[in-house]
Order: sequence, then structure tokens, then C-alpha cells
Amino acid sequence: MGTAPATQYPHGIGGHFHGKFAYRADVSSSIFPSRLEIPKYKSQFSNPKILANRTYALPDCDGFFGEKVPTPLLDVVESPIHLKNLSIKELRQLADEIRLELSSIIPKTQKSIKSSLAAVELTVAIHHVFQAPVDKILWDSVEQTHAHKILTGRRSCLNSLTKTSNLPSFASQSENEYDPFGAGHGCSSISAGLGMAAARDIKGKRERVVTVINNDTTMAGQVYEAMSNAGYLDCNMVVILNDSRHSLHPKIEEGPKTSINMLSSTLSKIQSSKSFRTFREVAKGVTKRIGRGMHEWAAKVDEYARGMIGPQGSTLFEELGLYYIGPVDGHNIEDLVGVLQEVASLDSTGPVLVHVITEENEASNIDQKKTQGMQQEGSTSSCSFLSTDHCRTYSDCFVEALLMEAVRDKDIVVVHAGMGLEPSLHLYQERFPDKFFDVGMAEQHAVTFAAGLSRGGLKPFCIIPSTFLQRAYDQVVHDVDRQMIPVRFVVTGAGLVGSDGPLQSGAFDITFMSCLPNMIVMAPSSEEELARMVATAAQIDDQPICFRYPRGAVVGTECYFPSGIPLQIGEGKLLIEGKDVALLGYGAMVQNCLKAQILLSKLGVDVTVADARFCKPLDIELLRKLCENHDILITVEEGSIGGFGSHVAQFLALDGLLDGRLKWRPIVLPDKYIEQALPGEQLEDAGLTGHHIAATALTLLGRNREALQLMR
Amino acid sequence: MGTAPATQYPHGIGGHFHGKFAYRADVSSSIFPSRLEIPKYKSQFSNPKILANRTYALPDCDGFFGEKVPTPLLDVVESPIHLKNLSIKELRQLADEIRLELSSIIPKTQKSIKSSLAAVELTVAIHHVFQAPVDKILWDSVEQTHAHKILTGRRSCLNSLTKTSNLPSFASQSENEYDPFGAGHGCSSISAGLGMAAARDIKGKRERVVTVINNDTTMAGQVYEAMSNAGYLDCNMVVILNDSRHSLHPKIEEGPKTSINMLSSTLSKIQSSKSFRTFREVAKGVTKRIGRGMHEWAAKVDEYARGMIGPQGSTLFEELGLYYIGPVDGHNIEDLVGVLQEVASLDSTGPVLVHVITEENEASNIDQKKTQGMQQEGSTSSCSFLSTDHCRTYSDCFVEALLMEAVRDKDIVVVHAGMGLEPSLHLYQERFPDKFFDVGMAEQHAVTFAAGLSRGGLKPFCIIPSTFLQRAYDQVVHDVDRQMIPVRFVVTGAGLVGSDGPLQSGAFDITFMSCLPNMIVMAPSSEEELARMVATAAQIDDQPICFRYPRGAVVGTECYFPSGIPLQIGEGKLLIEGKDVALLGYGAMVQNCLKAQILLSKLGVDVTVADARFCKPLDIELLRKLCENHDILITVEEGSIGGFGSHVAQFLALDGLLDGRLKWRPIVLPDKYIEQALPGEQLEDAGLTGHHIAATALTLLGRNREALQLMR
Repeated sequence: MGTAPATQYPHGIGGHFHGKFAYRADVSSSIFPSRLEIPKYKSQFSNPKILANRTYALPDCDGFFGEKVPTPLLDVVESPIHLKNLSIKELRQLADEIRLELSSIIPKTQKSIKSSLAAVELTVAIHHVFQAPVDKILWDSVEQTHAHKILTGRRSCLNSLTKTSNLPSFASQSENEYDPFGAGHGCSSISAGLGMAAARDIKGKRERVVTVINNDTTMAGQVYEAMSNAGYLDCNMVVILNDSRHSLHPKIEEGPKTSINMLSSTLSKIQSSKSFRTFREVAKGVTKRIGRGMHEWAAKVDEYARGMIGPQGSTLFEELGLYYIGPVDGHNIEDLVGVLQEVASLDSTGPVLVHVITEENEASNIDQKKTQGMQQEGSTSSCSFLSTDHCRTYSDCFVEALLMEAVRDKDIVVVHAGMGLEPSLHLYQERFPDKFFDVGMAEQHAVTFAAGLSRGGLKPFCIIPSTFLQRAYDQVVHDVDRQMIPVRFVVTGAGLVGSDGPLQSGAFDITFMSCLPNMIVMAPSSEEELARMVATAAQIDDQPICFRYPRGAVVGTECYFPSGIPLQIGEGKLLIEGKDVALLGYGAMVQNCLKAQILLSKLGVDVTVADARFCKPLDIELLRKLCENHDILITVEEGSIGGFGSHVAQFLALDGLLDGRLKWRPIVLPDKYIEQALPGEQLEDAGLTGHHIAATALTLLGRNREALQLMR
Repeated sequence: MGTAPATQYPHGIGGHFHGKFAYRADVSSSIFPSRLEIPKYKSQFSNPKILANRTYALPDCDGFFGEKVPTPLLDVVESPIHLKNLSIKELRQLADEIRLELSSIIPKTQKSIKSSLAAVELTVAIHHVFQAPVDKILWDSVEQTHAHKILTGRRSCLNSLTKTSNLPSFASQSENEYDPFGAGHGCSSISAGLGMAAARDIKGKRERVVTVINNDTTMAGQVYEAMSNAGYLDCNMVVILNDSRHSLHPKIEEGPKTSINMLSSTLSKIQSSKSFRTFREVAKGVTKRIGRGMHEWAAKVDEYARGMIGPQGSTLFEELGLYYIGPVDGHNIEDLVGVLQEVASLDSTGPVLVHVITEENEASNIDQKKTQGMQQEGSTSSCSFLSTDHCRTYSDCFVEALLMEAVRDKDIVVVHAGMGLEPSLHLYQERFPDKFFDVGMAEQHAVTFAAGLSRGGLKPFCIIPSTFLQRAYDQVVHDVDRQMIPVRFVVTGAGLVGSDGPLQSGAFDITFMSCLPNMIVMAPSSEEELARMVATAAQIDDQPICFRYPRGAVVGTECYFPSGIPLQIGEGKLLIEGKDVALLGYGAMVQNCLKAQILLSKLGVDVTVADARFCKPLDIELLRKLCENHDILITVEEGSIGGFGSHVAQFLALDGLLDGRLKWRPIVLPDKYIEQALPGEQLEDAGLTGHHIAATALTLLGRNREALQLMR
């Protein structure tokens, strides 16, 4: 049984212990006597495969993971300064404990943290060598920062977040002194780090700047812009490429085209090269020959830098102006610490790239199985944000509708940008592998590439989440819209996205797409409408068109096959006719208008509900009719100011319809970033629920008291 | 004297000839007898330096360039097909004639066409080898396409455009069958070409795709995204890197840091390498040794590809997956044709990168001197779009104001993105070389880099043209606004930009910036206001802020030094008080409101004019006051729908101010791309002149006849 005192578990979980599993008992008993020895179980924990198999074989998965695992060394580490005096052995143990802790959190979260699992040793080594928060450590993506958060005072936060609301731990990085820059959409940390390094030099300071990028990030163009500028400015900074095997495919020539871009293939060749695998042996020999009289690690770094492992991959970075060191085994703390210490002690070397190779595959396997297990027995509270058997998502319906069109029309192709594919898109990829282009984190390229496909006579559907479409805005404007090229933009993740918070939410797309002169801008209010919009987009072949849909479950519960009759461009739909108040919804918000209608009808208010369908072109006839027959018009959209409501207002004003008695009220996303929360909570926060809409109508009718009652 | 018949000058300029200059007489007399021989003057013309010196030494520059130069071979080339049967000698002559023709156009245009001059031989070689329009030729930037336009039926268009309205020749590329994709903001042609190549493969066609990029373009991240994806998809396509010495600095180690990024330095090292210069000799020897029995050019290409010239620079492209060939002398037509023919005949090789080196320096020198000459004697019609001695531009005033602030505040730094610096910015660069970062065509990086500088304790002003800020929108959202990082965005080229047309016009920035929750959005109505906004931006240090200003001349004529008293955030200004109509202008449009006020006052209409200054936060008090005291409110902005007017409408609606008698009319840019024209013509086209504003007011007052009269 665990002998740790309760105070070592500051998060109130307690030392409650079932004692079912022998190796866990080993853990607790072997660690405590002496933290300076490598515990006997070490080899098990440092090999994720063994851990995975063991863990997955446990009969009571859920119960097990819900408990606190013993982490004696981690428990006394409260800030990175505590890592300074630890030996390599202790650092290894610490890494094992962090991995154990993280593994115990995994099943509680929707998102996998395999990236963080793979980066545990790297994180420990970084914090051992560098002096955060004086030295600036920047991470390119939040996914790999869990170990970093644990070591920088946010352990309890991580635990409580994942335990209370089933949310992943997107703690706001800017709140913590150890995070000088918030991890954003990926690929931005070198730019930000370079800015800090340049500022440091101007201010005559001496702190070090370390940015950690990963191999997903190397797909994004900004990384090259930043590296090339770093090479030119020649500021001292360390770029660590956490090159994970997870998304790479060592045998690119033999296998299917599963790797997304060519650089990944090049990197993967380095990984799989025999010379890398036998590096340790080679390195020892070389060190003996040339290392005499030199600091051992200086020699070793020198070897790394001289590309003894094989030149491929390294020269790319060197031509961009970074001094390349690597590849280094990302799970060997001794190597990591040695290389980083050497790099940290260098002065005036300009930017250095340390290429670190980590393993995600095993972690990924555990992860997937565990997550599957959890989903089967999981709660349904966040059901609408998961593509389980029970909830059909908009994405599922989109893919079904697209497959129907693609069967009919051989010119349809798909371009996908962003990290990871939604599960339903795999269906399309399997059915039409040659007509599916996944370009990864390269949104700019995706859009212009789609324009090229269109000019080549095909009908591209370009699928990009709303928030990442921001990255390709200029390409949308100049390579598509200005040239009137028929590209069909499928804007996913539109509006609020629940647990992913402001980082992923699609607040601005209606605004920035509908100001473009040649773009048709639509949003479906239901899965049927979505299918019709897919058909419409497939049909329109002389100008660009876009439609947005939210994450999450569709409206209907039946699993029918959508019809897909093309819409008349610019034709909205009157759903319910009333006389007191007109609610004009755009996209998913039509459903909330319908909810408001139910609430209002109970209070005797006769409500009209219309589905605008199009933000551009607007249904002018419908608008005129609504204005003629009502004194109150409320427009509702899940988007920022400047979008649908603004287009309606502009038309009404120019048509003279705002001059008279009409009261127009726009309901849009509020002027703030909505933090991560459950979907319902976010809608409440944004003021976009049926209750909010109904209350707005009641207020306009002068029934303020009832409006207040409704909001209670 | 020229013996060419008049029909060989289809553009009506005639063979009028002064006979002042001996070498010109040589030209005409030596060409005509036999076009198959290399004319005697050839070595002069193919060496731009000699041409430059000669040309500049001419006493009657303007008169000379105004005339038609003899171009007998070019005159019979009406489409690229006519190049097929020309010998290398004739191709050389054709290139010389094109250069001559282009040189005669240069002084008539505002923009230099040195890029096109440098690419003449390359263009001729491409059209000789490839079969446009069946083969697709894509250009990354319009600047280098003049020779291409001359050869593809747009010679007269180029002549007439440059002669009639003093405009550069931005013919709409999509209108011509030889331009399968419009050259946009640069850096997009590989993406578009790859799309076409992928479409070709899906459709089972066999045409070739050739994209021409340049060394400016290699700064942009999208190029890397595209190359990496091209390498992965392994489609057959030819990427030609037109690597011009103009923007490179061979001796980067010795000279000042004038090169912008590291890759240019790497490329320039290749150019300046001795091995490149002595390549011809080496190549001959190697061909003899290994070329026996092989097609001579196959061997040569093989040498190029094997990096016999030196490996630096090539591996970068190879690691991204492109087969590298080069560097090839871009002024040696024989080499170019040889290499391109070999490349064109290859099948199933995947993407190939041909590295071509061209010279711009000489052309640039001619150009600059000529342009200076022209400006001194030039017309003043387009004065407002030139920074001459006579017209102070908004850009000049901005730099003056910024210099004042920078002297006071040592933390101020400048980040500039985009191609080329406005002349006035050089002042800042000279004064504060260590606080000036020009990152070139790398807008994404520029924004995040500025955010990093800000986090490092400095006060960055990030200067990006409105249209290019579109490229960094996601970085503005997530790396700056969401994190509340004080970056000061200086949005130049706001609104319509005259001769540069829709490609450069800044129509959308008000819309896409003012929907961001934490951004302060301003626009100055005059140079005084601009100076105050610079001071305001320098002062605000807890949130991001932006202001936009147009190209062209300021309002005042005096050369005073701006004051720069910070504004109260969200405080507009009442300029003229009236009672009938309220005109609320934003930015430069305030001046047009004042013009409208003058027109209207003559017609007895009592007009209020207010300068909003802020789109966000709005001056609520001012708005309420305007609504209380007027029945008519007209908002005017030089931006798309969704911007200032929409923010005003949203506030008025929520405040209930639109419910009553108030007539609100928004005047914004129309829902189309405004084509290039003189500034006044563009404003007419857009409906944004003082007359338009006045006519809108008259119509609202029921004085339709007077409104119509005003618009006559």
C-alpha cells in the first residue's frame, strides 16, 4: 500500500489505493526509500509500449485512471528551479513520473495528449538546462506543453480542469510567467521568439530564447519566413525541432502516400537511417578520436552539427541560416541535457536548430484504445462535440452529401488544410483517394492550389476550419475571389467550438468572407439545408462560393440520407409566419430562433421565423416582406459584427426600410473572445440562446419584466 | 534611315527617325538585309550595361523614347507559335528587340519594368520551348511579364496603356488565353500551377505546367508550403526560379545588411561563386568526358542537376522534393533553350526547379536615372501618387511623426513587410538602423515578430500595406489581438490606389480589423490627425492599435512639422455644425465630406461634418448628438461593407436611435473590384466623391432634380 502522506497529494485526491496491481505497489514502495536511485520499475515506465500493454490490460480502467498515481519526485518539484540540482538519473525518474501522471489524465480528456507524452524528456531537459522564467521558453502548440505546465506550477490546474468539466487543459499561457508567448495556431513561435531575441539585443539583456516547434509545424510557410529572417538577423536563439515519429512515415517509398508533405519524408528518412540508429556506437568512436582534450559534449555537438548522421534534412535549415545540430534521441535525457547545455553555453553563434526525434506511436496507441474505452462508457454531456455512434455531426452529413455529389460528378475533388482529419472525411478519402488532397498546416497553399485545380477544369471543395481560413485570407481574396474562380469553401468549426475555446472558434468568417465582391456566402440551418448547399456549391461553376457549419451534432435524430436539391441563389425560407416579431436567423442560429419562437408563443407573442440561408446575396424579397409585415426585426448569427446583420442593415438602409417605424436589432457574437466552456455555457456567455433572443423580442415589445423573468 | 514599311509599325507611330545617333542607324540598316544573321550591334544590345550607358548619354532622352524603335523581327511575331522555328541567333535578336521596345516604354511609366528587362531572354526561351497556350505558363508577379505580354498579343495594349494614361500595364491576366492564372500578390504561382498539374493528371491530359517565381518570392512562406506539397504529390511541373542579382548582394559578409533574408544570401553566394562564373569552361570539359553518346544537353542538364556548380542552395529545394537544375545563365538563350528543352522532354520526373540567374542591376540603373529625368520634367497629373518634391504624402508625414516619437521614446522599433520601402521610410532606417526590421515578403512572420518584440519590452510599429495585411490576418488575430499584445499596425495603401488597381487596393482592412475584440481602429483625416494618431499609438501600451492612411498627397500644402498630441481614445471631432444633414466621415473621406458640405451650402443646405477618427471604439456621445440634432446621417468611408458604417449602424440600432425618424445612409466602396484608373476616376467609379455625397444628401432631402444636376 502507498505510504505517502496525504500532504504529498495536494489536490485532494488522497492516497486511496486498491492494491489490485502489483507493479503499482512496486512503484510506491521502491521510490520512497531513496530518490537518488533509479527505481527498479524504471525500464517499464520509460518504455511506453510496456506501460501501454499493462495499462490496457487492466480490468477496471476507469477506476484506475481516476486515481492519483504515486509521483514522489514530481511532488516536491514546484517550479523549474527545483530541477537544477537533479542528477541525470533523477531527471529520468522525474520524466517517468510525469509520464505516469499524464497517462492518468488522458482518459479524462477528449483530446489526446500524446504529443505531450512524447515531449516529456525534452521538457525536463529544457527546464534543467535553461533558467525559466528569465530564459524565455516558447512552445509552438499547446498539445505538447502538458509536461511543461506540470513543471511550471499548473499541475493542480491541469488536474482540476480535466476532472471537473471534461475539458482539455488550454490554460491561458499568457497568464503564466513561464509562458512569455501564448501558443497559438502553431508555427508562430520562431517569429515570436526571434522578436524577443531582437528586443533582448536592443535592450542589452542576455537571457536566452528557446522555441520548440514540431514536425507538423514545418508544413506552415511562416516557419520558413521566420527561419530565414532568423538566419539573416543572426540573433542568438535556440530552435528545437521536436520531430515526432507519430506523423511521419519512415518508408515513404514503399507505403501509401500517408505523409503529407515532402519535408516530412525527408525528415523521416533521417530517422529511419541506419546511421542514426547506430549513432551511439559511431559517436563513441569519433569522440575518442577527436575528442581528446576537448569537453566531451563539445565534441559530440560538433559531430551532430557536422551531420555525421547523414546530411539529408540538415542542409535545408543551414541554407535558411540556422546552425543545425542533430538528430538527437529525444528520449535520452543524458544526450538531451548534454546537447542543450552545450548550446546554452555558446555565445554569439546566431540561431541554432536542435533536431530532436521523439516517439509518439506507442503513446498514440495507448491513447486511442483508452479513448475508445472511455467513449463507450462515457457520459453524454459533451456528446454533441464527439462523433460517436449516437450523434451525427454536421461534418458527417457534409461528407455524405459530398459523396453523393462526387459519385454523380467526376470533377469533384477535395482539398483539406489543417491538422488532422475529421473522422468522416476519411470516408471520402477512402472512396476517392486520388481526388483527395490533404495539405496539412498549409492553408495559404491549400486555397491557391484549389484555385489551380479549378482552373484545370475540376470542381474543388476546399475544407478549412473557420479560424484557419484566416491564414489564407489574402489567397481567398486575390487568387480566388478577384479572379472569379469557382472554388467551394467549406468553412468548418464555424462559431463557438466548446472546449477548444477562442483558439479554434470561428467568429470572423462571415464578416471577412461576405465583404468579398464575387463570393456567394451561405450557412445551413440544418443537415437538410447543408446537403442542399453542397449540391448548390457543386452546381455553381462560375464564381466562388462558401458555406459554414458548426462543430457538433445535427438537428435531426434520424439517420436519413440527404436529398441535395440545389438552392436558388439568394433565396431564403420562411419557416413560421407570425405578425408581432420577425426573427431572421443565419446558419445554426435558425434553430435558436425556433426555440425563441416556442418560448414567445407561450407568452402570446406571434413570431415569424425565417432562415436567411444566404448572407450574400441577401434574399431581398424576403427582407422586404419581413419589414412590411413587422415592426420588429431581429437578425441572429453566430459570428462577429460586420457580417450577416451588417449586410441586412446596409440593404435596409439603402432601401429606405430603416427610415420608418421598423426596429432592427442585430444579435451577434459579443465583442470579446469567448473562453472554453461547455457549448451551452458558451452560448449563454455569448447571449445567443433562444432565451436571449426571446428576451430581446420581449424588451422591444415593452415587456421588460417578462424578459427579465425569462433570463432567470 | 529605317527602311521598314509603315505596316510593320501597327501602332501608328510610324518610322519617323532623327538619325542623330550612329548606332541606331546601324540597327536599322543591319537588321533588315538578313534576319538570320546575328546583327553586328548584337553584343552591344545583349549587354545591358553598354546599352544603358549609351542610352543615358543621349541628349534628347524624352524625344528618343517617345518614338518607335525599329523591331523588324518582333513586328512579325504575333503569337508564341511564331517563335517555334526561329534559330538561336534569331531568338537572340528577338530578345534584343523586345529589350529595346521595353526600354522605350520605361520612361512613360511610373513603375520600373527592370524585372521584365531582366527576364527577356528567359521569356523568349520559354515561349520557344513550350507550347502556350496548351502548356500553361504562370508568372508569380506582373512586374516580370512585360516581354511575355508583348509575345502573347498584347503589344499594342502595352503601348497604348503606357502612352495614353500614364499607367503601368496591369492588363487583366485572366482575360488572355496565355495567362491561365492571374499574377496576384506574388508567391502563389507554384500553388496554382501544382493545382493545374494535379487536375491535368486526374483528367488524363498531358500539357506541361511551367511557373516562374523570383527571388523576392522565395521570402514568402506559401512558396515553401507549395514546394513541399509539390515534392510530395510528385506531379510533373517545371518551376523556374528567376533569381535576379538586383535584390541580392553577393558579398553579404563584407557589406552592410542589405539583403533581407538568409536564403537570398545563400543564393547570392551561388551566383558569386567562382565556380559558377567559370562554369562554361568546366562544363565543356565534363561534357567531353561523360557526354559521349548522350544527347549533349542531357549531359549538361545532368551536370547542372548534380550541382557541379557548388551544392549550396540546391539542397534546400531538393529536400523540399524538387529536382534541382542550375544555376543557368539567364541571359544566355542557348543555355536556356537547351536546359528547358531537356526539361520539357522529360516524362514522369516530378517537379523540377530550374535556377536561372539574371541581371537587374544595370537595367535598374538605367531605369532609375531615366525615371528621375522624367519626374523632373514630368506631368503633375498623377502627382498625388508620387513622392516628389512637390507633394508631401501621408507616408512622408507618418515617417516625420514617427521619427519625432522615436527620438523621445527609445523603445520604438519598426517592422516593415512587403516589397520595397517607401522612400520616406529610408529616413527612419538611416536614423535608426538597429531599430528597423525589413522582413520583405513575409507578412505572417512580420506580425508575430512584432508581437515578440512587444513582449520583449519594445514598442513595435508594424507597417504593412492594407492588401498585404490580409496575408497575416490569422497572426493579427491570434498572436496579437487575442493575447492583447500592444502592436501598432500602420496600414498603408488604404482604400483605392490608382494605377495599381485592385491588386494593391486596400478595401477590406476596416472590416477585418474592427471586428477584432481588443483592437483600437483609427483613420486620420489629415496629416495633423495622422501625427496625433502616431502619438496615440506610441502612448497606448496595453492593447493593439491600428490606423490606416491612403497613398498619395496630404491635404495641406505647407511643410510644417506635425505636433503629435495623443488623442483621447474613442473621441471624434465635430468640424462644422449644421442642422439639415450630418456627414460623418472616416479617414480620408472626411475631406470629401467637407467638399460635399461646400457644394451643399451653395444649395442652401446646412450641413454638419464630423471626423469619426475611431471606428473602434466609436465616439458614442458624438453619434448620439448627431442623431439627436439631425434627421439625416450619412457615414462615408473608403472601405468595404462591414466596416465603419456597420459599426455605426450596430450601435445606433442597439441604442434605439434607428427606431425613429433618423435616415441613415452608408456610403462605402461598391461591391466590386475597382479597376486601375487615375485616382479621381476611381473615386468617381466608386461613388465616393464630394458630389456623390452631396447628391445622396439632396436625394434624402427630396431634392432629386438638384441631385441629378450635381452628378452631371
